[in-house]
Amino acid sequence: MDTRFTGVIPPVITPFTASGDVDYEDLDKIIDHLIDGGMHGLFVLGSSGEVAYLTDAERDEIVKRTVARAAGRVPVLAGAIDTTAKRVIEHAKRAEALGADGIVATCPFYAINDEEEFAAHFRAIAAAVSIPVFAYDVPVRLGGKKLSRDLLVRLGTEDVIAGVKDSSGDDVGFRRLVAANEKAGHPLALLSGHELMVDGMLLLGADGFVPGYGNVEPRPYREMWDASREGDWTRVRDIQDRIAAHFETVFAVKGRSGDATGIGAFKTAMVELGIIKANHMAFPIKPLEGANKDAVVAIMKEEGLI
Amino acid sequence: MDTRFTGVIPPVITPFTASGDVDYEDLDKIIDHLIDGGMHGLFVLGSSGEVAYLTDAERDEIVKRTVARAAGRVPVLAGAIDTTAKRVIEHAKRAEALGADGIVATCPFYAINDEEEFAAHFRAIAAAVSIPVFAYDVPVRLGGKKLSRDLLVRLGTEDVIAGVKDSSGDDVGFRRLVAANEKAGHPLALLSGHELMVDGMLLLGADGFVPGYGNVEPRPYREMWDASREGDWTRVRDIQDRIAAHFETVFAVKGRSGDATGIGAFKTAMVELGIIKANHMAFPIKPLEGANKDAVVAIMKEEGLI
Amino acid sequence: MDTRFTGVIPPVITPFTASGDVDYEDLDKIIDHLIDGGMHGLFVLGSSGEVAYLTDAERDEIVKRTVARAAGRVPVLAGAIDTTAKRVIEHAKRAEALGADGIVATCPFYAINDEEEFAAHFRAIAAAVSIPVFAYDVPVRLGGKKLSRDLLVRLGTEDVIAGVKDSSGDDVGFRRLVAANEKAGHPLALLSGHELMVDGMLLLGADGFVPGYGNVEPRPYREMWDASREGDWTRVRDIQDRIAAHFETVFAVKGRSGDATGIGAFKTAMVELGIIKANHMAFPIKPLEGANKDAVVAIMKEEGLI
Amino acid sequence: MDTRFTGVIPPVITPFTASGDVDYEDLDKIIDHLIDGGMHGLFVLGSSGEVAYLTDAERDEIVKRTVARAAGRVPVLAGAIDTTAKRVIEHAKRAEALGADGIVATCPFYAINDEEEFAAHFRAIAAAVSIPVFAYDVPVRLGGKKLSRDLLVRLGTEDVIAGVKDSSGDDVGFRRLVAANEKAGHPLALLSGHELMVDGMLLLGADGFVPGYGNVEPRPYREMWDASREGDWTRVRDIQDRIAAHFETVFAVKGRSGDATGIGAFKTAMVELGIIKANHMAFPIKPLEGANKDAVVAIMKEEGLI
Repeated sequence: MDTRFTGVIPPVITPFTASGDVDYEDLDKIIDHLIDGGMHGLFVLGSSGEVAYLTDAERDEIVKRTVARAAGRVPVLAGAIDTTAKRVIEHAKRAEALGADGIVATCPFYAINDEEEFAAHFRAIAAAVSIPVFAYDVPVRLGGKKLSRDLLVRLGTEDVIAGVKDSSGDDVGFRRLVAANEKAGHPLALLSGHELMVDGMLLLGADGFVPGYGNVEPRPYREMWDASREGDWTRVRDIQDRIAAHFETVFAVKGRSGDATGIGAFKTAMVELGIIKANHMAFPIKPLEGANKDAVVAIMKEEGLI
Repeated sequence: MDTRFTGVIPPVITPFTASGDVDYEDLDKIIDHLIDGGMHGLFVLGSSGEVAYLTDAERDEIVKRTVARAAGRVPVLAGAIDTTAKRVIEHAKRAEALGADGIVATCPFYAINDEEEFAAHFRAIAAAVSIPVFAYDVPVRLGGKKLSRDLLVRLGTEDVIAGVKDSSGDDVGFRRLVAANEKAGHPLALLSGHELMVDGMLLLGADGFVPGYGNVEPRPYREMWDASREGDWTRVRDIQDRIAAHFETVFAVKGRSGDATGIGAFKTAMVELGIIKANHMAFPIKPLEGANKDAVVAIMKEEGLI
Repeated sequence: MDTRFTGVIPPVITPFTASGDVDYEDLDKIIDHLIDGGMHGLFVLGSSGEVAYLTDAERDEIVKRTVARAAGRVPVLAGAIDTTAKRVIEHAKRAEALGADGIVATCPFYAINDEEEFAAHFRAIAAAVSIPVFAYDVPVRLGGKKLSRDLLVRLGTEDVIAGVKDSSGDDVGFRRLVAANEKAGHPLALLSGHELMVDGMLLLGADGFVPGYGNVEPRPYREMWDASREGDWTRVRDIQDRIAAHFETVFAVKGRSGDATGIGAFKTAMVELGIIKANHMAFPIKPLEGANKDAVVAIMKEEGLI
Repeated sequence: MDTRFTGVIPPVITPFTASGDVDYEDLDKIIDHLIDGGMHGLFVLGSSGEVAYLTDAERDEIVKRTVARAAGRVPVLAGAIDTTAKRVIEHAKRAEALGADGIVATCPFYAINDEEEFAAHFRAIAAAVSIPVFAYDVPVRLGGKKLSRDLLVRLGTEDVIAGVKDSSGDDVGFRRLVAANEKAGHPLALLSGHELMVDGMLLLGADGFVPGYGNVEPRPYREMWDASREGDWTRVRDIQDRIAAHFETVFAVKGRSGDATGIGAFKTAMVELGIIKANHMAFPIKPLEGANKDAVVAIMKEEGLI
């Protein structure tokens, strides 16, 4: 296992200006905020980074700026998110050239493929770059497509992928993946995206985790990680419970789309905490405002965050 | 309604060489085959065109070659398929510059949006090009996302979209869309992709249809259209029944992925009919072979196609 | 094929009193209304009959009353709806003893079975009674479970089932079922429950249909059937379009459950037309009232029904 | 919270004879096996008990026998599983009369209802019996229907339900339910059916759990519970990991239906361990045999169980 990619590696959100451009100044601030918060790595151009809304030019600039700002303090993973291998490879090569330390890629989407085609897909991507490739398992965005345990361990054993970013929410599947990975000699770094169940995921053997809410509060996630290394599971659980209470800011948003709700609540909280200037979202998403913004703020106050 | 985009407009399949490149020579042959077969238009870079597997450079070349080969004989619609508006617009502008007569775009995918965000998405795309934009409703590839009747008619009335390519398989929804479009003054050209139910869709008022199997046999689809214009519904039904019997070639394929099965069977049949040289698919899909190829050929023989 | 079970066979709705009991007096009126409206048969204890909400005692009484009131004028099919074969058989035997002419049964639900288990299920039910058994394909109520074409034709050829009540909405599947049934010598009476697509379903060869909205307006459905026998497809389509416009009463209901909406709108319209006294529903469903009732009535007025 | 219903309460499987009858002699053995294994209660007539396949007479006899055999050593919960409230109430009253200590009921199925209708459903059931009612949240058998956190806590606060048997697999939902229950004064006993994640569920605050595999090996589940009460989370995790390795017997079964696979593997293992005589299943399910039986046995040997 590549130990550079363990611990807490949040999916970095992308700040925008009112006109819909990426706010690179605020991006720098977020990067510092996360590294200062104890994060072990950064994952840019993920779903929480609104990657699907970004042009190639914007994606490139984000990788470039993040690599520059991180300046070797922590490794930088970059999403190479597109429908199929040929297109993913174009993104992956550019990210590698711009200094990313690793690539994160999903199985094909829009396309309708089977597991053998998934395997060929990841093999082609891995062969096209010389940095590690992580498989990104995110059924909720891919019409339910799930990467199987057997496929992942096979690709790990063959040195095709270096790890998995598991956003499937399938905890039993993750437990079985951890066990099979162990049996195979632990080739894969298994990162859980199950950010309200980090206690349980660490208890069963996750090598790290990728918490979207970590953009708002990195420090407690790091504390969870540290407590888990000491085997202090009661403390891990208590921190997770506290984060879960704060995370109710997301569930408080009503009547908005999935991306507007989750990422929108993170950004709104980050503005309140003074991390970024504005909660603008990628076009065509409007930022949270009115009752929804108030609901986020109310919970933050109730929880003593502001 | 823009009457250029009515009648039979097949989604042109993309032929490949053994090395995975687009076979432009065979593409020319397919275009002639379709126009000679009486098609009223061509739709390139759709799902059946394996658009999701093509790089931008390949997509551009396909539009260029198709426009050149069609040479004004029929209008050419080009898919501008990508996750969100900013990215779709880049494709759409290039397609317009390369001579496409219209654009076909889906709602956002990978992204998780709501209907208001869908509306803004289509408005932005339409504003970025000066050729007509068709909304492509294809839930099976988009994790179930469906464009609502009310949204489509609203966008039609506002002159944002010129029509709909409905691949939802939701025939009741399509009937209700036809009725609402009629009530609104028929702003939209409503094209059905429900290729085994063309008789029923024409009977209830479709303005045209987009049959994948039309790549194999364009002529009978044209005959259906013509018979429908004469109100000879028994003949329309009889032709559809015959096509459906031929279409069993697709259902005969076992154990392969969705794209390998459907598009694979079309290509395999086209090889047998001498339309293209080989049934290669886009990477990472392997062509049909062995028992699956035999099954396709057996049905073609049984049905007297070869 | 058993020709007694062809043509228009509506799923008879169950009227209730304010206290939640079956209103047998109104049931008699509905039966007369349907038979006078030209229906070829009656199907009691189906989904539209709110069968899932009825005790065994109520189910028995409904069969008894319907058989008595129909008095041989038309055949009576009775739903035997329960989770698995042993339980279904108890219902089926009672219905046979009470005079039903045929049984309608779904595949198992709550249980999680495969196709071979489905086959054994239907074989056991058929073996337990001496009247014909219809397979009821209704995925929307069964978590998506669909009876396959091959299973149905096999059971038809083996004389296990006499026909199918297809409420799957899968029109391509139905077309393929019609073709396979024809090839097998037409053992099955194939009844479509796709009540807003009756024109298309008759055009492609349905042996009959089972329209819930037929409870409100049986006559036009009968006229569609008769016109279809004469091959006057334009007329069939025109009648279906008119019914679809009336059916907007169902789509006008907002914010209520599935059963409250569909069956609720039928009952509300039936009250307006003087067929039944009240639009009460089975416990725990409250009848349509206020804005929803007004919306139904408004469409009925607009369409000249009242 | 009713503390009688906390700890480990397995869903008791139902043994059958070769002719498809319940094997009451083996049922007695299972009951003793479970109580001797340290279980805190028994839940008969659940999904693992193949309740959907049992007639009313069989259900009654199972309750009667279980109550007699348990003889007050542990409390007995009985499933009252049917489509809607009126029918559920008939089961619930009989179970109460036969001595059950509590009732477990799902939301309506086959029926299509909304949350207000769910609430009325549970209120009617609770009003009809004088023993506690548990809400059974089992979307996998109910077409995806999920009981919401807010509904459950509301019904708990109103004393309608005494607890929840959560078989949704939605761990984040369960965490939020635990937190909301706590905030409301802990009216509900929250039992998790997430049997391969018991460590995580106990860590976050489950009041108990309902493990199907507990039929095979009750003792380690009890040990997990005890270790959790002592806060020895490493030990809880280690036991869960070991159970998960044994549970691979279920995943080893290929090509069979859901019920044949899960319950079938449990029964096959129980035969190997000498707990019951035969692995017969309810009609129409055939027991595991041949390669599938061998696969189960092979894992049991590998794991040192036999």
